[in-house]
Amino acid sequence: MAKQEDLFKNVISHAKEYGYIFASSEIYDGLSAVYDYGQNGAELKNNIKEYWWRSMTQLHQNIVGIDAAILMHPTTWKASGHVDAFNDPLIDNKDSKKRYRADVLVEDHAEKLLQKAEKEIAKAKKRFGDDFDEEMYKETNPRVKRYLGERKEILERLAKSLTEENLADVKALIEELEIADPETGSKNWTEVRQFNLMFGTKLGASAESAQQLYLRPETAQGIFVNFLNVQKTGRMKIPFGIAQIGKAFRNEIVARQFIFRMREFEQMEMQFFVRPGQELEWYEKWKEARLNWHRSLGLGEENYRFHDHEKLAHYANAAADIEFDFPFGFKELEGIHSRTDFDLKAHEEHSGKKLRFYDPEMKENYVPYVIETSIGLDRMFLAVLSASLKDEQLEDGSSRTVLKLPAVLAPTKAAILPLVKKDGLPEMAQKIVDDLKWDFRVQYDEKDAIGRRYRRQDAAGTPLCITVDHDSLEDQSVTVRFRDTMEQKRVHVDELAGLIKKETDFRTWMKDYV
Amino acid sequence: MAKQEDLFKNVISHAKEYGYIFASSEIYDGLSAVYDYGQNGAELKNNIKEYWWRSMTQLHQNIVGIDAAILMHPTTWKASGHVDAFNDPLIDNKDSKKRYRADVLVEDHAEKLLQKAEKEIAKAKKRFGDDFDEEMYKETNPRVKRYLGERKEILERLAKSLTEENLADVKALIEELEIADPETGSKNWTEVRQFNLMFGTKLGASAESAQQLYLRPETAQGIFVNFLNVQKTGRMKIPFGIAQIGKAFRNEIVARQFIFRMREFEQMEMQFFVRPGQELEWYEKWKEARLNWHRSLGLGEENYRFHDHEKLAHYANAAADIEFDFPFGFKELEGIHSRTDFDLKAHEEHSGKKLRFYDPEMKENYVPYVIETSIGLDRMFLAVLSASLKDEQLEDGSSRTVLKLPAVLAPTKAAILPLVKKDGLPEMAQKIVDDLKWDFRVQYDEKDAIGRRYRRQDAAGTPLCITVDHDSLEDQSVTVRFRDTMEQKRVHVDELAGLIKKETDFRTWMKDYV
Repeated sequence: MAKQEDLFKNVISHAKEYGYIFASSEIYDGLSAVYDYGQNGAELKNNIKEYWWRSMTQLHQNIVGIDAAILMHPTTWKASGHVDAFNDPLIDNKDSKKRYRADVLVEDHAEKLLQKAEKEIAKAKKRFGDDFDEEMYKETNPRVKRYLGERKEILERLAKSLTEENLADVKALIEELEIADPETGSKNWTEVRQFNLMFGTKLGASAESAQQLYLRPETAQGIFVNFLNVQKTGRMKIPFGIAQIGKAFRNEIVARQFIFRMREFEQMEMQFFVRPGQELEWYEKWKEARLNWHRSLGLGEENYRFHDHEKLAHYANAAADIEFDFPFGFKELEGIHSRTDFDLKAHEEHSGKKLRFYDPEMKENYVPYVIETSIGLDRMFLAVLSASLKDEQLEDGSSRTVLKLPAVLAPTKAAILPLVKKDGLPEMAQKIVDDLKWDFRVQYDEKDAIGRRYRRQDAAGTPLCITVDHDSLEDQSVTVRFRDTMEQKRVHVDELAGLIKKETDFRTWMKDYV
Repeated sequence: MAKQEDLFKNVISHAKEYGYIFASSEIYDGLSAVYDYGQNGAELKNNIKEYWWRSMTQLHQNIVGIDAAILMHPTTWKASGHVDAFNDPLIDNKDSKKRYRADVLVEDHAEKLLQKAEKEIAKAKKRFGDDFDEEMYKETNPRVKRYLGERKEILERLAKSLTEENLADVKALIEELEIADPETGSKNWTEVRQFNLMFGTKLGASAESAQQLYLRPETAQGIFVNFLNVQKTGRMKIPFGIAQIGKAFRNEIVARQFIFRMREFEQMEMQFFVRPGQELEWYEKWKEARLNWHRSLGLGEENYRFHDHEKLAHYANAAADIEFDFPFGFKELEGIHSRTDFDLKAHEEHSGKKLRFYDPEMKENYVPYVIETSIGLDRMFLAVLSASLKDEQLEDGSSRTVLKLPAVLAPTKAAILPLVKKDGLPEMAQKIVDDLKWDFRVQYDEKDAIGRRYRRQDAAGTPLCITVDHDSLEDQSVTVRFRDTMEQKRVHVDELAGLIKKETDFRTWMKDYV
């Protein structure tokens, strides 16, 4: 646990030190749960977007992309259910004036019971050694059994109360468990109330005529309201998909874990429209296709797992997450949801427009069913960054920090380094930059000893270093050093573009995973 | 004039018909002055972004990109002056309850005087023919002289009142000129008041603790607040630049002209940090470099002109627009501004942090001066789209509608068309798609006669059509048809990737303009 926390801290500080992520408006001490992407972060983020966008729209003839606005007609959010049901249950402490998510207070209490049980188990394990039967112990040790039983009971009651929107019982639970304000210890609570998570804003100037708008809390609805326009003008036939990358906003009360849960975040979503009755078949296909996409990046097969939802959202008839092993454990990275015809039907009802497809084979008009694949782009960024950051012990006894980003995603593809800052080496290196820069993002660096420059590029995540030395002037060959293996080989300058393309190209990385 | 209006209408309807631009939330009758980019629009917009981003960050070793959040600490907008001064003067009609920009009402009145004068001049021109001396006529004809004189007087008084923020005089002017509500004719007006153009929103749940935030009205401040983080972690030396592409929002009262002035829009900005005293030299360099960038797209040299600002914003010591000949005349496409050290100094004052650069040559710490280049991405999109749309009369007497997009920006680079839907031609065409799709966005189309498919691709803006016929099966060669010239040539399939790259590559288009 301690080690994981250290890893997470390392990721956060490395992200800042190497220009990946800064706190938003840091000079004003930051804006809570909002972050800015720095000079390397912006490139990594763009490269993730492009990798996804190309996989979706370029490799599939039947998937096209759109870019809908963040501001939408407010009836959109009535139809989607967000105005009425996109809520968190909140509670205020009357003494401290602090506000909390009531469900999180209860969950944290339950978590403590689990920790107590785990502590007992760990102690027993130590005492009994190899003979220890954990399952048996949980059943028989009275203290452990009580902790776990209480925890289960609490979580079940909470789930029931939330499902039934029985907020009074959530309050009762908090009082029965004698949960105190974590910061002050006060148990003087208000009632529990629902709080809508959408950011609101007003369009237009006059107080009377101003229209209440929302910053979209998800990008999916931008696809649904454009479904018919895209289908008709793009002459799309079912099955087909619409992909989109864009910002969404949620006024989270408890926003935690760096860029994992932000108030302003970015989604990469694809809605795939299918014939009713075929949705579960497509759901399975997309689950597999999406996991393959993640696997293509080579971050480690053991870092992914499926989590099938038992409790389904009101619009879904099947749902699963692809979870990733973040520094704080396995958490949702991407969701695949069989959303039925819920959204299109709701927009039909609220807009009075027919959102149907005429299926020439079935000779029938119908509202298509939808499979959604939805990644949090910022989570994807965090997954890539945290899985890539390594402290390595080298054979010569020294160590290095290296960011083993998938080369296809790396901000800088190659660094061009003159061995020394004289004898015409900088000029030759600059000439190589001037040729390569048209096709690749490359960086020229002449400062410090060559070993130090290698380490700097390792830490920044640059997959290739190209060193120009005195021999280069004679034979037009240079030394290429590979970040991950630290192997070096001699390459003619005319072969550099081909080598970089091979190492960093979309096709190289993706071709075995489609 | 009528012809220009027709052209503009054509652009708007073509943009919808071919999946470039849809009204936002169109099924709910749209959201005023907000638009969505459709399946071709999203690609064209991405390609414009990439063309700019690569030109800025990939071709310049001393320019890096960032991606700051839309939500920023509110003090940012205090420092930048937007909280206090980003206002429009508004007036309400008490009878109709309609709201107007007071300055626009006065300007429209002045415009009518100009139109009256022009009508008189046109009549006289017709009467006198070649002998007509327009300047002399303006000086001597009493009616024309009066119209023009009154107009000049009104505009000067308006400018003075606005500069002095004398809103009472703007109201007085409206009353003296007897300006009526254009929709109802009522002259029953309220006072003139300032209205801030920023969209507001609240962060956090409790009414007491909620923080008033704004949707950023410009992206520039995201660069300024990150200046020091980027400079230090990126080890940048002055002169250097920070580029950014992102959304901005303005609660415009009068939003007009399709995507030219939207409430939600996107900017591509670069702030270039220089040594104090060298800013005007860099300003001239960037003016030239930016015009060259536009020229590289081949939309016609005659479509661009500089407009140097006479009246400068409070933060600038020089400013110019690159204007483009839109369907509604020459209007601002990009601004180049010498912003002095205004912004960084303001952030120093409001944050208490030093935002300085230690210049090793001068051995001195200073607040850098800034040259800004700022394009409206949506305007750029409109410029490209409207300059590319052509109705052509062909030699055989027929006509075609063709969207002559710069090939580097075209959504689809090539369409792969089997001549007929049998004899193995679809399979061979599909094989070509499956090879090319890794590097290019290509489209397979087998529906309708080949001539009709060519026309469809012409109208959608696809630069190359690749036709597979029966000979192709024998000799592995295909017919490549070029959109702009309609020339056709026979090419071996192995040469297709090279040909498409040559026609559509960044280097091809940009190399003579850096």
